[in-house]
Amino acid sequence: MINSRQRLVGFDPGLRKTGWGIIDVEGSRLSHVANGIIKTDNSLSLAERLVQLYDGLGQVITDWQPVSAAVEETFVNKNPNSTLKLGQARGISLLVPAMAGIPVSEYSPNHIKKTVVGSGHAGKEQVTAMLGILLPGVKINGEDAGDALAVAICHAHSGGAHGRLAEAMRKENLKTGGAQIIIKGARS
Amino acid sequence: MINSRQRLVGFDPGLRKTGWGIIDVEGSRLSHVANGIIKTDNSLSLAERLVQLYDGLGQVITDWQPVSAAVEETFVNKNPNSTLKLGQARGISLLVPAMAGIPVSEYSPNHIKKTVVGSGHAGKEQVTAMLGILLPGVKINGEDAGDALAVAICHAHSGGAHGRLAEAMRKENLKTGGAQIIIKGARS
Repeated sequence: MINSRQRLVGFDPGLRKTGWGIIDVEGSRLSHVANGIIKTDNSLSLAERLVQLYDGLGQVITDWQPVSAAVEETFVNKNPNSTLKLGQARGISLLVPAMAGIPVSEYSPNHIKKTVVGSGHAGKEQVTAMLGILLPGVKINGEDAGDALAVAICHAHSGGAHGRLAEAMRKENLKTGGAQIIIKGARS
Repeated sequence: MINSRQRLVGFDPGLRKTGWGIIDVEGSRLSHVANGIIKTDNSLSLAERLVQLYDGLGQVITDWQPVSAAVEETFVNKNPNSTLKLGQARGISLLVPAMAGIPVSEYSPNHIKKTVVGSGHAGKEQVTAMLGILLPGVKINGEDAGDALAVAICHAHSGGAHGRLAEAMRKENLKTGGAQIIIKGARS
């Protein structure tokens, strides 16, 4: 089995605050790298705030060089204007990694909670507690950053990351005549 | 009165098709420059389609060098998923001109129809007919391109363009000791 380390980024998008979380995955081991929040200035126009978000996301990609990204599927609000606002921010969160040539996966909030905590209806406290267990010593810089780490963990355990890891290793094997590949945790 | 020509772009955003329309404004005279549609390939992932849209919008800005942009305020659909999808495309339409340093205004569909046709409840045929009158000889490359031209015309007649035109002329006057400024069609 090849033990290749993969760096993943998760995003929890929002216009006011977008959380980001970076983890490393090596075999079945996860480790925390960094997490934080990109805030936009609500005294600016919507277009200018989207530029701030774009710049902030670009900085995260440049600083941490993840090879794969995942974005939380936006909670579709009962208020259509909130949904629209969130959609605008989410579009930028999908755009920026894709522009950097990084594959982007999407996971629903329920799928993320189910993967991280074991239940799709887990509360925020349970998610936070589980982050402390899965990423020992992690210091979470706010709720949205914690949610973003949960997205990254979900990605590590789902098809996205392993699928691409398998793909990368398959290519490597074609080149090297390579070893047997064992992938755990395929998409459920 | 100073007759300074201003080039404006209007966008009618959508994930599948985003319409764009470029007009020149000189005093109270409008003239058509170009219009078209940016299509995205629905066999690609959402993130990749947003990159296509980003590239297409960037090409329009580069090709035509507008000094001011306007985007239609998205019709908030009863279907939250459609609203979300539209929001994602709309975010990119706001982002790209703002990144190029171009001020971006937003107008509601009703405000656009009222400005262009005289009634907020005008049908599509009325808008198309009026485009033919306001922009003689225009050839419209599809419905979304026509809607985008209507956005640009609305922008020309609203505070956005004239406000900035007035601002530009005020600065010019400060430099030249300049002539009297007459601005028609301030924001209603």
